[in-house]
Amino acid sequence: MGAADPFTLYHAPLRSRLLLGTARYPSPAILAEAVRASACEIVTVSLRREAGGSRAGESFWGLIREIGVRVLPNTAGCRTAREAIATAQMARDVFEADWIKLEVIGEEDTLQPDVFGLIEAARALSAEGFKVFPYTTDDLVVAEKLLDAGCEVLMPWAAPIGSGRGVNNAFALRALRAHFPGVPLIVDAGLGAPSHAVAVMEMGYDAVLLNTAVSRAGDPVAMARAFGLAVEAGRLAHLAKPMTPRDMAEPSTPALGRPFGDVA
Amino acid sequence: MGAADPFTLYHAPLRSRLLLGTARYPSPAILAEAVRASACEIVTVSLRREAGGSRAGESFWGLIREIGVRVLPNTAGCRTAREAIATAQMARDVFEADWIKLEVIGEEDTLQPDVFGLIEAARALSAEGFKVFPYTTDDLVVAEKLLDAGCEVLMPWAAPIGSGRGVNNAFALRALRAHFPGVPLIVDAGLGAPSHAVAVMEMGYDAVLLNTAVSRAGDPVAMARAFGLAVEAGRLAHLAKPMTPRDMAEPSTPALGRPFGDVA
Amino acid sequence: MGAADPFTLYHAPLRSRLLLGTARYPSPAILAEAVRASACEIVTVSLRREAGGSRAGESFWGLIREIGVRVLPNTAGCRTAREAIATAQMARDVFEADWIKLEVIGEEDTLQPDVFGLIEAARALSAEGFKVFPYTTDDLVVAEKLLDAGCEVLMPWAAPIGSGRGVNNAFALRALRAHFPGVPLIVDAGLGAPSHAVAVMEMGYDAVLLNTAVSRAGDPVAMARAFGLAVEAGRLAHLAKPMTPRDMAEPSTPALGRPFGDVA
Amino acid sequence: MGAADPFTLYHAPLRSRLLLGTARYPSPAILAEAVRASACEIVTVSLRREAGGSRAGESFWGLIREIGVRVLPNTAGCRTAREAIATAQMARDVFEADWIKLEVIGEEDTLQPDVFGLIEAARALSAEGFKVFPYTTDDLVVAEKLLDAGCEVLMPWAAPIGSGRGVNNAFALRALRAHFPGVPLIVDAGLGAPSHAVAVMEMGYDAVLLNTAVSRAGDPVAMARAFGLAVEAGRLAHLAKPMTPRDMAEPSTPALGRPFGDVA
Repeated sequence: MGAADPFTLYHAPLRSRLLLGTARYPSPAILAEAVRASACEIVTVSLRREAGGSRAGESFWGLIREIGVRVLPNTAGCRTAREAIATAQMARDVFEADWIKLEVIGEEDTLQPDVFGLIEAARALSAEGFKVFPYTTDDLVVAEKLLDAGCEVLMPWAAPIGSGRGVNNAFALRALRAHFPGVPLIVDAGLGAPSHAVAVMEMGYDAVLLNTAVSRAGDPVAMARAFGLAVEAGRLAHLAKPMTPRDMAEPSTPALGRPFGDVA
Repeated sequence: MGAADPFTLYHAPLRSRLLLGTARYPSPAILAEAVRASACEIVTVSLRREAGGSRAGESFWGLIREIGVRVLPNTAGCRTAREAIATAQMARDVFEADWIKLEVIGEEDTLQPDVFGLIEAARALSAEGFKVFPYTTDDLVVAEKLLDAGCEVLMPWAAPIGSGRGVNNAFALRALRAHFPGVPLIVDAGLGAPSHAVAVMEMGYDAVLLNTAVSRAGDPVAMARAFGLAVEAGRLAHLAKPMTPRDMAEPSTPALGRPFGDVA
Repeated sequence: MGAADPFTLYHAPLRSRLLLGTARYPSPAILAEAVRASACEIVTVSLRREAGGSRAGESFWGLIREIGVRVLPNTAGCRTAREAIATAQMARDVFEADWIKLEVIGEEDTLQPDVFGLIEAARALSAEGFKVFPYTTDDLVVAEKLLDAGCEVLMPWAAPIGSGRGVNNAFALRALRAHFPGVPLIVDAGLGAPSHAVAVMEMGYDAVLLNTAVSRAGDPVAMARAFGLAVEAGRLAHLAKPMTPRDMAEPSTPALGRPFGDVA
Repeated sequence: MGAADPFTLYHAPLRSRLLLGTARYPSPAILAEAVRASACEIVTVSLRREAGGSRAGESFWGLIREIGVRVLPNTAGCRTAREAIATAQMARDVFEADWIKLEVIGEEDTLQPDVFGLIEAARALSAEGFKVFPYTTDDLVVAEKLLDAGCEVLMPWAAPIGSGRGVNNAFALRALRAHFPGVPLIVDAGLGAPSHAVAVMEMGYDAVLLNTAVSRAGDPVAMARAFGLAVEAGRLAHLAKPMTPRDMAEPSTPALGRPFGDVA
């Protein structure tokens, strides 16, 4: 791959197509080991969870710095555009960087995006110079509005955050990919197993972002490595053009069996 | 439908395409009411469960006679061809009829057919003049052998008996239907809801047989009626030729979105 | 059912849970016959397609009046809130009624709702006293906003209009049903076969609306009757509480097969 | 992995869990390159297709020898136990080895196994000292009989040979795995993309065998590498214990929405 498979997000060149969250690992050491095993280059960090000033927060930042990956701060836990904007601004101060994974949560059970607050915050933050990575639904019209608002990357969900269900709506993910061939699309949330990640990469998605599927696996480090390989396999497969499936249920020759005189 | 939609099983003309089992109802009265609500014309009865000579058995036969439907005795619980053959012979004595639903169970958990014992028993019973309704898997080669053994009806499973899962292998059921256009095919076992029954009727199956989905529903009588309507709806739909689904995920016009210079 | 299964939409009492569109039938006579065969009580009519003043339009209205069903005018073809509002107002004049099926299309290929224009138009029309039936996506947050805007019925899609794919996102439809137990929910668009209609009724949806699956079937009248039965079957099944499916793949007893000394 | 993940087939220790077929590659050179890119250690070869004595056959054997992988001869194209046994014996002479992938085809369209001929041939060949790798269906009872016949490995299909459909019956594959925890199980036939391979490895299958998905891909070498990574990812994931998926469609708190007095 390498030179043959260029990939950038907001002009940053990348080799790995896996992004990892940093929440709910058994320990900081396991988090660090998992990130290394996955070969991922970007981790996302909740600013609210890891408050910058506290001692716990400091040691967490120290750890992330040590791993040597790029940090994509997120606005997890924000319920309004206003909250999300404030959190993003704080993140810029803390990290001295303008990347932000934008989450505006609209519903407590499914943790689904509030697409109204999302677009509002995306527009405001883009205007302030942020590079916005919006966590969004699979709605095509919303996607178009996020691009209009200044986003150059889209991150549709596969399923609710932390559900591990895999892709709830393959049709919608295919439609997004087909309608925005020139936009980097990252599936964010809901993947539970490497087979899910391979499937979305085979559809032509540019990358995947996940957290729980690794951090809550029996062995997070081995699972991180599995996802790293899976994403590479899926990308290779997409570029290598898979065979077209054939039905084969229909007989090619006159049918077996005999008609019975009196039967439908 | 009626005259426009003839249907026979071993030369017996039928209007209803639903067959019901008689096991595990809350009470005999509910069983009788469910059978009437479903408009089914054939019920299957386990000879082993309802031993002909006992008092409980007698009252059960009385009930079935009263409902006025045709009885299809079955060999449920038999594990070998020999057992199944003996049970079928006993059934012929009890019911003075030569129809038999042939079950030879090969595995305790999934209650799947033992296709080896099944073919052996089918051949022996057909030679003795029985009209055999074999409970079989979705294996095409097995189906061909059952026809060779003398069966004029096939009853492939959708899923394990009592599981209520619906169709486990839609490909295999479609292949069976396509390969044996002239043979009455009845899906037997595994359906859990009327939507499952409609789906197999839409595929072109001639009828469905079920038990647990009705007898263990919250309201068996209402569920029996629901299945009766469902089977009729599915048959009508099959004959009326459903529209062909369209994908629609691909854009018909040049794609939305803009390519970014540096992006895959 | 009847008395035992009350059902109202904006205080109008109804018996049938099937609503039909009126577009693309082979002939007006077949449309009329299909509506009667389905037993549906509400048909939806595109104001744009059947312009009130023209001669063709007049004969179409005459036909609808003759069938004796309630008309739900729709704003099909509208691309903005403004257009949809103007069309709804025209519909009120033509039909002297305040029911409106609100469509604001956001994308040409999938004909998906533009949820932004939809909410804006729903709010404006509700304020003017319209009874709004919004054609929407399966987004929970959008649903909540439509209720806030004054809608007392929601009509989420199953799949793109005219696709006949059935349910693209069963998770989302289940979530909508679970989150809005007191709101009449009608699946509108994308159903292609009666099995699809039964499945959404089994989930607890209150009704279904469809058009192409009937009008483009090989035999629209028979298909209309099939859908009428299907919707009834699905409703009955929902009320009768289906059995809980069981997996049954796992062995209940110590496993068959023998471990080989040297094997994983 | 390595020492932590031992894997043997008939006592032969292996590292790669991918087996490749050798048919229908664009050229011998591409076949050789694909095998190397996949890191597979076993290739299966049709004795009928590559007749040992002919010049073309000789150059093919030369190529395989050069690649340095183990050859698993197969009986592709055989329709009866007798034919398959004769072909296996010829293979033993040609390759001076006792491994045989046993195929007895029972149906021309789906190329499904004839489980009757298969068991007969498996028993005869095992008695002659062959190490039999039977290409079989997903039937549990057939599986038990193959073990009784002397097989120490089972190779159930996912879908018809060359179809690329992926897993037609996930329930049956899970049941096989659960019932035979100590038997090496290799999914053989029907996989079309790396996501399919990962999924069966995640179920706990020991290995996968495929041909068309690689040889007919746009770029067979890249696809071979993708499958190699996929199989490793799936194995790692299985050992690392994936998270348990959560539904999340049901609200955890009292439901949103308001009941309307007159509504179901």
